Amino acid sequence: MGRPYVHRLRVRYGECDPQGVVFNAHYFMYFDVALTELWRVHLGPYAEMVRRGVDMVVAEATARYRAPASFDDELDVEVAITRLGSTAMTTRQLVRRGADVLVEGEMRHVFIDAQRRAKVPIPDWIRTGLEPFHV
Amino acid sequence: MGRPYVHRLRVRYGECDPQGVVFNAHYFMYFDVALTELWRVHLGPYAEMVRRGVDMVVAEATARYRAPASFDDELDVEVAITRLGSTAMTTRQLVRRGADVLVEGEMRHVFIDAQRRAKVPIPDWIRTGLEPFHV
Amino acid sequence: MGRPYVHRLRVRYGECDPQGVVFNAHYFMYFDVALTELWRVHLGPYAEMVRRGVDMVVAEATARYRAPASFDDELDVEVAITRLGSTAMTTRQLVRRGADVLVEGEMRHVFIDAQRRAKVPIPDWIRTGLEPFHV
Amino acid sequence: MGRPYVHRLRVRYGECDPQGVVFNAHYFMYFDVALTELWRVHLGPYAEMVRRGVDMVVAEATARYRAPASFDDELDVEVAITRLGSTAMTTRQLVRRGADVLVEGEMRHVFIDAQRRAKVPIPDWIRTGLEPFHV
Repeated sequence: MGRPYVHRLRVRYGECDPQGVVFNAHYFMYFDVALTELWRVHLGPYAEMVRRGVDMVVAEATARYRAPASFDDELDVEVAITRLGSTAMTTRQLVRRGADVLVEGEMRHVFIDAQRRAKVPIPDWIRTGLEPFHV
Repeated sequence: MGRPYVHRLRVRYGECDPQGVVFNAHYFMYFDVALTELWRVHLGPYAEMVRRGVDMVVAEATARYRAPASFDDELDVEVAITRLGSTAMTTRQLVRRGADVLVEGEMRHVFIDAQRRAKVPIPDWIRTGLEPFHV
Repeated sequence: MGRPYVHRLRVRYGECDPQGVVFNAHYFMYFDVALTELWRVHLGPYAEMVRRGVDMVVAEATARYRAPASFDDELDVEVAITRLGSTAMTTRQLVRRGADVLVEGEMRHVFIDAQRRAKVPIPDWIRTGLEPFHV
Repeated sequence: MGRPYVHRLRVRYGECDPQGVVFNAHYFMYFDVALTELWRVHLGPYAEMVRRGVDMVVAEATARYRAPASFDDELDVEVAITRLGSTAMTTRQLVRRGADVLVEGEMRHVFIDAQRRAKVPIPDWIRTGLEPFHV
């Protein structure tokens, strides 16, 4: 039983809108950043995976906004893998400020051949690297 | 029975990622732009609504990515209202390139008092203005 | 003696910051969009140039901010070519709202071989296509 | 004689364009982030300054691009104050990857009254806080 990877980031001024809070679309950027960090730390640089012939594309992304984040807030972006299928992976994101959950997200990524852009089974070395975060 | 509002836009270079396609988060920006245009054309400028004391916040946003869009592509972003509740509105977005649907989205907005930031019933003048797009 | 190309665009909500105005970095995106439109209309799609072996990189970019633009503002982004050198091009951008100049910009692009990424002379077909905007 | 403040950041995937490198406009976001960090660490949160009645606007921004940065690159963004005038401040930015300088920037900020939006002299407490970075 794994547990989430946590990436901490600070909200940038240019990510906030005239309501003074993070513009809704940018949370998907945060989700991507957290997954990239998990990858880099535990599976190696994303570009390395592409050189080995495997890439990922996003098939679906969802966010539920419970409370806003503001400029200069320090946020913890949690990412946990909730499903490791044969060619696809589902992740769950939680954006927290301290104990408060501000945004909940879910993404589904499909693994593809980096050249042909067709679905491929998740390679074993990736599956093994992801297991610690499979909740 | 209404029908969708359609906003045409062209993909910007800086919106495309190293895969050469629109970065997934930017579609939520496109959804927002299309809704803003519907609003401006049929209900007046968004800022006018805020001056009249009403604002909206995004409660939920989803995108399903079927096919990628590339730099310079001309896209039609359709927005239809699928539910007009007492204090919330659900919209459905379709991003098309010609006849091809590239992305399907769904958003839920909640209406709030612009000062107190608490939920308020959708004002009648807004409800009336949105009816033509209520499918 | 040429004259500027003008591209009209509308300020997006997510491009505005908590001061309620367009975040300074986004004007460089606007400059890029206007140049892309000039290119597409008068030289063909940018991607076509790359397929023919030529690409451009930005060597320098400047903006002077005179007055802010706000959400929903309709802006005219003018782009004029002020210098066509042997391997580089200098452009001047003006962002106007009606008669008011809000931002003045300048960019220098260098032409490169799309594969080797080394400087190349500006091809004649590009030089010819740009002449109408050379002021 | 002061010295630059250095902020380290990592290039995000969504900040890179189809050339595989950081899109030129985003460096201005990086410049802003580095200045914000200097501010927060040495003068307190930016929002606190605004509550005390002072705000800043960008009057001019320049970047010279020497070499590209790519996805996952770790960058050091240096910010030094090169001029502290009566109502304006000029800063110099250097974006480094290890020993390599990739981008040089310059920005000029003007101090304004947060309510009236008119120029004001730089308050002493801000001047004092900035001195360590005045080169």
